[in-house]
Amino acid sequence: MTETQTLSLAEIEKLSFTALVAAGTNEENARPLAVATAATEADGVASHGLAYIPIYCEHVQCGKVDGQAVPTLETPRPGLVRVDAATGFAHAAIDLGFEALIPAAREQGIAALAITNSYNCGVLGYHTYRLAQAGLVGLGFTNAPASIAPSGGSKPVVGTNPFSVAVPGPDGQPSLLIDQSASTIAKSEVMKHAREGKAIPVGWALDPHGNPTTDPNVGLKGSMAPSGGYKGVGIALLTEIMAAALTGSTLGLHASPFSGTVGGPPKTGQFFIAIDPAVSSNGLFSNAISDLVASIRNQDGAHLPGDGRRACRLAAGQKGVAVNSATLARIDAIIQENS
Amino acid sequence: MTETQTLSLAEIEKLSFTALVAAGTNEENARPLAVATAATEADGVASHGLAYIPIYCEHVQCGKVDGQAVPTLETPRPGLVRVDAATGFAHAAIDLGFEALIPAAREQGIAALAITNSYNCGVLGYHTYRLAQAGLVGLGFTNAPASIAPSGGSKPVVGTNPFSVAVPGPDGQPSLLIDQSASTIAKSEVMKHAREGKAIPVGWALDPHGNPTTDPNVGLKGSMAPSGGYKGVGIALLTEIMAAALTGSTLGLHASPFSGTVGGPPKTGQFFIAIDPAVSSNGLFSNAISDLVASIRNQDGAHLPGDGRRACRLAAGQKGVAVNSATLARIDAIIQENS
Repeated sequence: MTETQTLSLAEIEKLSFTALVAAGTNEENARPLAVATAATEADGVASHGLAYIPIYCEHVQCGKVDGQAVPTLETPRPGLVRVDAATGFAHAAIDLGFEALIPAAREQGIAALAITNSYNCGVLGYHTYRLAQAGLVGLGFTNAPASIAPSGGSKPVVGTNPFSVAVPGPDGQPSLLIDQSASTIAKSEVMKHAREGKAIPVGWALDPHGNPTTDPNVGLKGSMAPSGGYKGVGIALLTEIMAAALTGSTLGLHASPFSGTVGGPPKTGQFFIAIDPAVSSNGLFSNAISDLVASIRNQDGAHLPGDGRRACRLAAGQKGVAVNSATLARIDAIIQENS
Repeated sequence: MTETQTLSLAEIEKLSFTALVAAGTNEENARPLAVATAATEADGVASHGLAYIPIYCEHVQCGKVDGQAVPTLETPRPGLVRVDAATGFAHAAIDLGFEALIPAAREQGIAALAITNSYNCGVLGYHTYRLAQAGLVGLGFTNAPASIAPSGGSKPVVGTNPFSVAVPGPDGQPSLLIDQSASTIAKSEVMKHAREGKAIPVGWALDPHGNPTTDPNVGLKGSMAPSGGYKGVGIALLTEIMAAALTGSTLGLHASPFSGTVGGPPKTGQFFIAIDPAVSSNGLFSNAISDLVASIRNQDGAHLPGDGRRACRLAAGQKGVAVNSATLARIDAIIQENS
């Protein structure tokens, strides 16, 4: 049994903020990341919540991310916003970009935000969620260091590269939120099995020759298995085109690892598209989505993407979140050491 | 051995045009579909080439598609074009829409085309290909009658719903073209096995209770298996959101079948996004794509999406295409009967 402590969302945000600032992040960069960390814990995605704070702090201290970065924005076309994250945290860059993206999407009908020189943006669906809260359909793409090989090949060329889409709902919450990577399973799961000395199921990873393996260490030297074979490679390529090539960011092929302290800033990218659904559908969007959502909710046992996170979020707002005590101790130590 | 005859692309286009007009399609609607049919045969996608002409003709004659339709265009926002296909062929509607979409994407940086009251658009990648030829990254989505069940459910709610992305290349041909459906295999393959009385492999389709089946007839009464399980459902939902909900078209849930003569017009939709990659990437796009493409081509046996169609296309321009003689006889009969 893992020991836990229950914290309110405000406490999670405050703790995250304090640790990030103690590690050398300025307040402008620490705040959006602290807010996202609380929201991620609320959504029940513990792997990307407080557990990431010690990693973020280490990355500020080793220079993999610049805690003092000042992102800059330009609008080269009415529908296209570009933000240079300046090797700082993605969250501050995305916040800056969304301030321009959201009004541009309303005025133009559709607009895009290209973020370059960026870093791991955490849970991608956290960002598209905010576009849905603004009444827009939000599409997001983010790239990562290469870990998936092309169909018929064995050398990784693209990351596990998630995409996300969030759809505005009648209650201010997204009525549907999809946030999925291109691999069968998250790379962090393979790393966890390696740390714990456990075999992985066939179908999670491939050896350096492209053959199935149950040894997580061999899999980490080879590649991650794409979900659905060549079609998963197609999704990873789509995301690489959007998040890296269209933003002018570093391809997964050349990006430094998101984990560990070596290699300097990864300089990867994010790409967001925001669409005004009432305009594009001539007012028919909300009813269509209600109909689609009902067709899934009305089936016993059927899963509507986003419902799991929504349920966690509603509960967390009331009751707080049970957080791993060892993680809290690690964050407290960072705050003590740096104050 | 199937008997074939070799036709030039001009002959394929002329034959398609003549048959469509003989069946009651006007010239404005027949031409873009005939051009697309020749291009589809050139690309080696015989299942969606001339073989579809008798179906298109039948659908004009039974009223599933209006051969005399006049699509109409509006531009409710600078970046958003809407075309009402008026239950006519998708191809004429897309042609009309692209005339506005392409300049809008260049001016705005990104633009979208929402097509409603439409019909099966044939090979989706044919359309995104043309956006890439215009120097734009083209993303396309099209929805279809429901045949995929939600994760954990058994009743179909979304179609096999393909998406496509085409990336401009240095030689006027796309350097990368992805065009894939959300199911493990095309529904037409299951229908073919049913016609031929052959069993299907496990993993292609599910019975009406959501269990695997090897009987194609049972699978056709149940649902198509999504590629990669719940992640394939996610792709089908993404496409349904884009192609149906965002365009105000008929959901796959309610659409009449694309095959057969019953049910009237399906009134499904297409959604296209065109992005100016030189602007969004600040000039870095072409080199990034060359680098990514090389990383795949340089691996022995690795498959770059779009290379198969490209090779067929280059050969077809020189040598023509070997076409099924029975299909030609069927098309000739349509022309004779209606002239």
